[in-house]
Amino acid sequence: MPCALRLGVWLDRLFKPRSIAVVGASPNPRSIGNLLLKRILDYGFQGRVYPVNPKYSSILGLKCYPSVSSIGEHVDLAIVVTPAEVAVKVAEDCAKAGVEYIVVASGGFKEVGARGAELERKLVEAARAGGARVVGPNCMGVYSPRGRVTLFEGFPREPGDVALVSHSGGMAEMIVMMLAERGLGISLLASTGNEADLTLVDFIEYMSRDEDTRVIGGYIEQVKDGRRFLEEARKAAARKPIVLMKVGRGEAGRRAALFHTGALAGMDKVLSAAFKQAGVIRAETLLELVEYCMTFSRLNPTPVRGVGVITGPGGLGVVLVDAVEQAGLKAPEFTEETKLKLREILPPVAGVSNPADLTLAMVRDIDLVRRAALILDKDPKVDVMMVGVAAVLTYSRQIAEEFAKVMSEAGEQCSKPLVAVCPHVGEAETHLRKLVQAGIPVYLTPESAASSLAALSAYHKAKMKLTSPEAAS
Amino acid sequence: MPCALRLGVWLDRLFKPRSIAVVGASPNPRSIGNLLLKRILDYGFQGRVYPVNPKYSSILGLKCYPSVSSIGEHVDLAIVVTPAEVAVKVAEDCAKAGVEYIVVASGGFKEVGARGAELERKLVEAARAGGARVVGPNCMGVYSPRGRVTLFEGFPREPGDVALVSHSGGMAEMIVMMLAERGLGISLLASTGNEADLTLVDFIEYMSRDEDTRVIGGYIEQVKDGRRFLEEARKAAARKPIVLMKVGRGEAGRRAALFHTGALAGMDKVLSAAFKQAGVIRAETLLELVEYCMTFSRLNPTPVRGVGVITGPGGLGVVLVDAVEQAGLKAPEFTEETKLKLREILPPVAGVSNPADLTLAMVRDIDLVRRAALILDKDPKVDVMMVGVAAVLTYSRQIAEEFAKVMSEAGEQCSKPLVAVCPHVGEAETHLRKLVQAGIPVYLTPESAASSLAALSAYHKAKMKLTSPEAAS
Repeated sequence: MPCALRLGVWLDRLFKPRSIAVVGASPNPRSIGNLLLKRILDYGFQGRVYPVNPKYSSILGLKCYPSVSSIGEHVDLAIVVTPAEVAVKVAEDCAKAGVEYIVVASGGFKEVGARGAELERKLVEAARAGGARVVGPNCMGVYSPRGRVTLFEGFPREPGDVALVSHSGGMAEMIVMMLAERGLGISLLASTGNEADLTLVDFIEYMSRDEDTRVIGGYIEQVKDGRRFLEEARKAAARKPIVLMKVGRGEAGRRAALFHTGALAGMDKVLSAAFKQAGVIRAETLLELVEYCMTFSRLNPTPVRGVGVITGPGGLGVVLVDAVEQAGLKAPEFTEETKLKLREILPPVAGVSNPADLTLAMVRDIDLVRRAALILDKDPKVDVMMVGVAAVLTYSRQIAEEFAKVMSEAGEQCSKPLVAVCPHVGEAETHLRKLVQAGIPVYLTPESAASSLAALSAYHKAKMKLTSPEAAS
Repeated sequence: MPCALRLGVWLDRLFKPRSIAVVGASPNPRSIGNLLLKRILDYGFQGRVYPVNPKYSSILGLKCYPSVSSIGEHVDLAIVVTPAEVAVKVAEDCAKAGVEYIVVASGGFKEVGARGAELERKLVEAARAGGARVVGPNCMGVYSPRGRVTLFEGFPREPGDVALVSHSGGMAEMIVMMLAERGLGISLLASTGNEADLTLVDFIEYMSRDEDTRVIGGYIEQVKDGRRFLEEARKAAARKPIVLMKVGRGEAGRRAALFHTGALAGMDKVLSAAFKQAGVIRAETLLELVEYCMTFSRLNPTPVRGVGVITGPGGLGVVLVDAVEQAGLKAPEFTEETKLKLREILPPVAGVSNPADLTLAMVRDIDLVRRAALILDKDPKVDVMMVGVAAVLTYSRQIAEEFAKVMSEAGEQCSKPLVAVCPHVGEAETHLRKLVQAGIPVYLTPESAASSLAALSAYHKAKMKLTSPEAAS
């Protein structure tokens, strides 16, 4: 079988296929078989595309085949959108034709009960008999900007460095759009649905070896094989950060996961402990998942003992140091030298203890932010500088633009990481996106900013352990 | 003294003054004295405005007076922007002239140490000697759309029903902008700064009797007189919901609050207990503060035992029921009757247990949301319907518009509250704002949505207690 033995290359043809067959393609513009075919073509896939449906001779101007085996050429990837009952036959045909990967988008399997589960078992059996591997069923398959493949609508063309694995196609969609709003792109995405064959562990393993991927994020409803997960996640986490949002924590959540992807969500506490042991970072919320991915995409893992806060309105400074402390980090009082230097540039009424409170002077002279950051950059008690973005900075495009410029300069001039917190986005959106692209994470809430920095620090520690000589031996 | 005895009317002249003097007004366009005067004029204040500064004879086309007492007409409200040392003399002059309220915007008082504290004491003494009351110092004063008064820049002209009290002007600004982004307006706002005289308790008391106010929100760094706070907050909470975000929880937060408004932040746990006893709702985060205010502005207090979740992508459904359970609420399995009725309108693969998973069918037929909501509306186990807004609904303005229309109709047709959760705003912003205006709260995170409903329920319970015959006796 062309599987786990050829690590690092074995899923290449799934994410960068040379040819795709769409089984269940249709000329009906309201059918999924039409939509998915169109998405593949519209996104600019560069390889060969074969619609498959015995009822038609051509669809969207492409020759249509009665079956995959009748195509007569090698097919790397088959997308299956037929009803569940038909999908088993399709898998047999794909296996016969030597297809490498089968993405089964159709639902109607394990998530609908015993009869669906039986179909699912047969589907995988048929595929594996011919050496084909299955993604799904009940999934949205893959998205790979560098491979010019997507089964999702409206996804960005620009690739990025965040890889995603998700049991839910809809959640994957939401996460990608939330990342895109911050100016962040995707390297690889797999929506795994019911995970009848390929599981999140397979994808984590592959993504951890993908050189375009800097961080792996995941929305997960279950962990199928705990032992293998622990083993592989450990290895992967030694290479790069893995951030997982695990749902199905309570009773209703577990029931919902079961109905959604047939997932048995398992004991939540056990999983939390397993994550920790494996060096996997757990995101408690969707926002944390997105912002942790942003953090690891933009910043190198580093110990964060002290956070130096810079703020315009003093109140936001209080909120920020509060959030820093709640996340288990410190907002230490600055050294006397730092205070003296801040005094030199700030109005006499400004607080200089931590936060550095630039007061309304910040609005009159936005460059104060940069100068304050450079002062904190030299303070041995400060590991990261956190800038609170006041509402007034997001009022007008002009101020927002100037602020983004000053922050970018500060980011280049500081040797320590610089991050921004912007609870009110307003007119600043475009400019804040540029900041993220320039390597300065912009967080939407003080709490998620602080917990992101805590995650950055925790991962640094975990990675040190995982890659130490004792861990290797 | 014209103070606490004339409850309900006694702060009227602060929020709806007939005349305003700006002491420290200046023709220099970069000075605060110029900015504030301009803001008052630009916002369209209808009463008389008197610039005061011995150095000039006219400013911005208005006659300028050497002192307040030289104006020769009654002044309801004096705004003071002079340096702290001068402000004491100004307060004496205001008191002599019979000014009713003095807003001291200037800093340099208690927040900068012992000398400032002494100035602050003298300032209040001088004002109170003439019966004048002081807001601040070190504050941004008031904002009152119905009184056509603001010291803040760029604030909305449309009044609303959320009253705000804030120790920080900058935080007040941020909260107002965040509320405005949701389509919510302000009835009254007081930024109280160092609270040398008038405190948050005075404002809560007044706001609780203001008939244009439906909910009172607050950003607070300290509670000055615990006993009075408890007593008055209790009375106010029996009238309407009070949501307070209290900062300065940890050591660094307390230090920051001290430097910001000279606040002694006090024991956090004691305060939490006091809040609970008084029926005050505590918001843990800025986002919660904003969204709790939205909740109480749009929905009547009601017990929330069961939340019925409606979702497009199944994953979001799992996230939502998870969040509901984490907030201490229930997402109960629907009754058999509900399930049968959902089956009639949904595709066979859809989950109908809670969440009602509309699957991709939702995108093809957005009206399914309305029909599902109407079915859940009849389920005795459901008290509130929560709709998860999929990313796909926020892709294009057209879909977002159609969704907003269907949701508004559902809101009108349902007898129970309907809320939406939209973690990815995208193109939908304008339409989501319309939803809020139509009485349907739209939340940015699953967690804040769930905790908002928990707050709605908790306040219902607290209010029942506070207004029961035993409580009154």
